[in-house]
Amino acid sequence: MGLVVQKYGGSSVANAESIRRVAARIVATHRAGHGVAVVVSAMGDTTDELLDLAEQVSPKPPGRELDMLLTAGERISMALVAMAINDLGEEARSYTGSQAGLITDSSHGAARIIDVTPGRIQEALAAGAIPIVAGFQGVAQDTKDITTLGRGGSDTTAVALAAALGADVCEIYTDVDGVFSADPRVVPKARQLDVVTYEEMLELAAAGAKVLHLRCVEYARRFDLPIHVRSSFSDREGTLVLSEAAIAARIAAGDTMEQPIISGTAADTNDAKVTVVGVPDRPGEAAAIFSALADAGINIDMIVQNVSAASTGLTDVTFTCPQGSVGKATAALDAVKERIGFADLLTDEGIAKISLVGAGMRSHPGVSATFFQALADAGVNVEMISTSEIRISVVTRAEVAQQAVQALHTAFGLDADGEAVVYAGTGR
Amino acid sequence: MGLVVQKYGGSSVANAESIRRVAARIVATHRAGHGVAVVVSAMGDTTDELLDLAEQVSPKPPGRELDMLLTAGERISMALVAMAINDLGEEARSYTGSQAGLITDSSHGAARIIDVTPGRIQEALAAGAIPIVAGFQGVAQDTKDITTLGRGGSDTTAVALAAALGADVCEIYTDVDGVFSADPRVVPKARQLDVVTYEEMLELAAAGAKVLHLRCVEYARRFDLPIHVRSSFSDREGTLVLSEAAIAARIAAGDTMEQPIISGTAADTNDAKVTVVGVPDRPGEAAAIFSALADAGINIDMIVQNVSAASTGLTDVTFTCPQGSVGKATAALDAVKERIGFADLLTDEGIAKISLVGAGMRSHPGVSATFFQALADAGVNVEMISTSEIRISVVTRAEVAQQAVQALHTAFGLDADGEAVVYAGTGR
Repeated sequence: MGLVVQKYGGSSVANAESIRRVAARIVATHRAGHGVAVVVSAMGDTTDELLDLAEQVSPKPPGRELDMLLTAGERISMALVAMAINDLGEEARSYTGSQAGLITDSSHGAARIIDVTPGRIQEALAAGAIPIVAGFQGVAQDTKDITTLGRGGSDTTAVALAAALGADVCEIYTDVDGVFSADPRVVPKARQLDVVTYEEMLELAAAGAKVLHLRCVEYARRFDLPIHVRSSFSDREGTLVLSEAAIAARIAAGDTMEQPIISGTAADTNDAKVTVVGVPDRPGEAAAIFSALADAGINIDMIVQNVSAASTGLTDVTFTCPQGSVGKATAALDAVKERIGFADLLTDEGIAKISLVGAGMRSHPGVSATFFQALADAGVNVEMISTSEIRISVVTRAEVAQQAVQALHTAFGLDADGEAVVYAGTGR
Repeated sequence: MGLVVQKYGGSSVANAESIRRVAARIVATHRAGHGVAVVVSAMGDTTDELLDLAEQVSPKPPGRELDMLLTAGERISMALVAMAINDLGEEARSYTGSQAGLITDSSHGAARIIDVTPGRIQEALAAGAIPIVAGFQGVAQDTKDITTLGRGGSDTTAVALAAALGADVCEIYTDVDGVFSADPRVVPKARQLDVVTYEEMLELAAAGAKVLHLRCVEYARRFDLPIHVRSSFSDREGTLVLSEAAIAARIAAGDTMEQPIISGTAADTNDAKVTVVGVPDRPGEAAAIFSALADAGINIDMIVQNVSAASTGLTDVTFTCPQGSVGKATAALDAVKERIGFADLLTDEGIAKISLVGAGMRSHPGVSATFFQALADAGVNVEMISTSEIRISVVTRAEVAQQAVQALHTAFGLDADGEAVVYAGTGR
């Protein structure tokens, strides 16, 4: 019998009733003969309530103290989950990130895990107990101060702990049934995927799918650790995230898992487009532009530059970045306008990024042709194009994002027979 | 230039506004040139809210998990206080009980401090920062689990930390101006005391005064550490709790502190009286009775046994215990009724314990005479009497408790000119 790490998000432990349901699921896994270690997020809106309190006390609280404050959230949920399990007759013991050996750097609010030393967790497992570990938090190696991991932190805690324990699988329980071929709120016929590769999951996450955070998938890929995304509100099978080799091995061993050429489509409407107009077409200009943006801490996604018009020797460079960064980006570029010598800056927040992701793209020619034909048939105009080995992304008007995604979903045969079930709430 | 430990109770940090007021007071002390270490309780009703949550999840949660849950309360308040101080331009760093070196035994919910190793607090002080320490909590030496100290825990944390740091004084900030000669809600003319001895404070606490908890005063007495009880809602001078020698030394050095013969009066209406009727007057009977009660975990306060009637060879033994323990006490005694051979058990929950406390009692004859004359003049009937070197306590009907305390307060010249100011709320 194996060792399972289960992670439950904030919506799965939002109140006493949810906590008792989660406890029953953990106990069932334990009684089926598995070793179980659990990672929990803070209950429901706890984190937002604590942030509200902080804001009332200080407009710019120090990161160290904000981390100390926010980590109270998991302390509450993990103790309650442990109590509920003990109430069902099994022994559970809760551990803070520090007690569980989650060693990080000291970047408060966005700490990176640098080591996991889960000695106390292993002792608890060896004693037949169920350890409950606080997600999202750790302790800084140098300062011994409490840190938080930032967005997606609890998923990352779960995967890092599972890797350190040599677990067979890390189960991520959330409020959806698994990873879908599209956002079911946009595409009602979205189908739940049986399996995706780490690479597909990374591309889907980058393309706007919110089920798993990039860092957690990267961590799992590094340690080749299977992730199993499931709903804590149902008993459905969920979605496995595996390496391509692991999928091949399972299929060879007789597993009947469907692995389509295309895994899914996604739309992201949180980005903006910035065009630098009239850039002299000579070496070093692009470097100057993107150095200025990097120095300002701007996260760039897509970049497009066309060949310059022979008559003028000038070209346009267009990039996308989060809408919240547009002001900082234009300020950073205006500061170097003289040196670069560009003519103008155009910004556009009314865009959507539409992506198609699938590992099968590599070996199946014709995907691009089907992609652009489907968008053309749907009357969707393409403004930018960017591709990776297993992804095609285009920028369109935000208004047509939904019809673009639906058209692609149908064109690639992803539509399910029934409609997907959607649950409310989101986790941390 | 000294080192001050300041403790703020739950009502002093109940909301953002209170936290900012407390922060301003701490910063003022720091800027006056003192080293300041701070101990805080959980905000207002946080502890009760967490207990409610626990009850919703499990009727009998394990002590380890309950402690993990409750300690989230101080984590929140200490981080917020630190943020508010940083906002005022001074550096503050919050520390959990474990980080501050509060080492305890592993009695969850009622842990005893067995060592204080405040290395990180000393480092913070040496760096010119203000350490903010979670009250009420520690870490078990053997299991490394998080513990709580039980009732009055944060006061005890403050005194223990002050002793370990070699602080000059431990300031306990609460929602009253200091220690009073009587409960101002009962005796409007109660006066605030300038100074009381540790022994008087212990007797007052045992007699029902709620300002300071027994354990914290015992700890301060052991280390001869001055306690200064003050209000966080006013700038009044408060009450000093000192050794008799320290008081004498201060008076010899010219301090004009009023130290009356009698410090105060108190009434406690939470006890009940149990009379064991018709106990054979032979050796070992009292031992049998109180062994049975001790085995049942009953806390006994006063015990009275009169001489037996010569005609019957039988006597009555009466004791007081908390009202909540009466059922357990009678059950424990009924179980040994045959063996002891007593005739009957009488219980009475309508009683009050009235106490008069004063270190001057030892050297001033006539206190008892004045005491009983005052009660007689007020028409108060005395049912039991018990005395220590610096205290006289009697049991009366609960209905006359208030007039008894007022009569004693006036008879011993304790009445103040004005009326005392009372603030709402209580701390942990």
